[in-house]
Amino acid sequence: MIRKVEHIGIAVSDIHAANAVFAALLGQAPYKEETVESEHVLTSFFRVGETKIELLMATDPQSAIGKFLEKNREGIHHIAFDVDDIEAELRRLESLGFSLIHREAKPGADGKKIAFLHPKRTAGVLVELCQDR
Amino acid sequence: MIRKVEHIGIAVSDIHAANAVFAALLGQAPYKEETVESEHVLTSFFRVGETKIELLMATDPQSAIGKFLEKNREGIHHIAFDVDDIEAELRRLESLGFSLIHREAKPGADGKKIAFLHPKRTAGVLVELCQDR
Repeated sequence: MIRKVEHIGIAVSDIHAANAVFAALLGQAPYKEETVESEHVLTSFFRVGETKIELLMATDPQSAIGKFLEKNREGIHHIAFDVDDIEAELRRLESLGFSLIHREAKPGADGKKIAFLHPKRTAGVLVELCQDR
Repeated sequence: MIRKVEHIGIAVSDIHAANAVFAALLGQAPYKEETVESEHVLTSFFRVGETKIELLMATDPQSAIGKFLEKNREGIHHIAFDVDDIEAELRRLESLGFSLIHREAKPGADGKKIAFLHPKRTAGVLVELCQDR
């Protein structure tokens, strides 16, 4: 079951500049920076109510974020929904015809189990599911 | 002061198809559909925790959403933040160097006062501020 928006992921080309922008906008510094080696990204997080803004900068141009920024400008990259049981949710969504990028959950940033849905079946929106480990 | 993510706006080319997709994803039908004549859009809303997903379909190809879809594929269009005092927030952000699309708040969907910031100063993200009327 989807419970809330866990975070909104934003692809940025310069995370230090983007941290300053979002700090000014939101009136707070990022509460965490984290390198996710498996995804080749440097991330930073801001809390806004019950959700978060996650900034993502590629540390390798061949990473998913690096390729996104090669094709697109900086901007919103994905929406992540918090779920109570990610494996059950993946099976539910697969049975409804959604296209799974990951058939099983994998470790993600911020101590989560994550999986992505392909935007071709979600009105162009890259959707992440995540569950606390 | 920014208090929470009020909604995430998604530009869609077929709102009936997109309603079905998000209803399946979120396990609920949209709670409201609303035509915003001034913006030439048909919108629908889903609640997710304290925030909302807003789907937007252009009713006129010359509208902001119509032009967005002419240049881009369907997908995430903007993030809207709930603020307690939109006029004060506009003055604060202007003084910090953000670029305002609207210098004064105007009436928006869902009974709000709204204003947008230009994405050129916000890492490519189209940011909406909104306040309950």
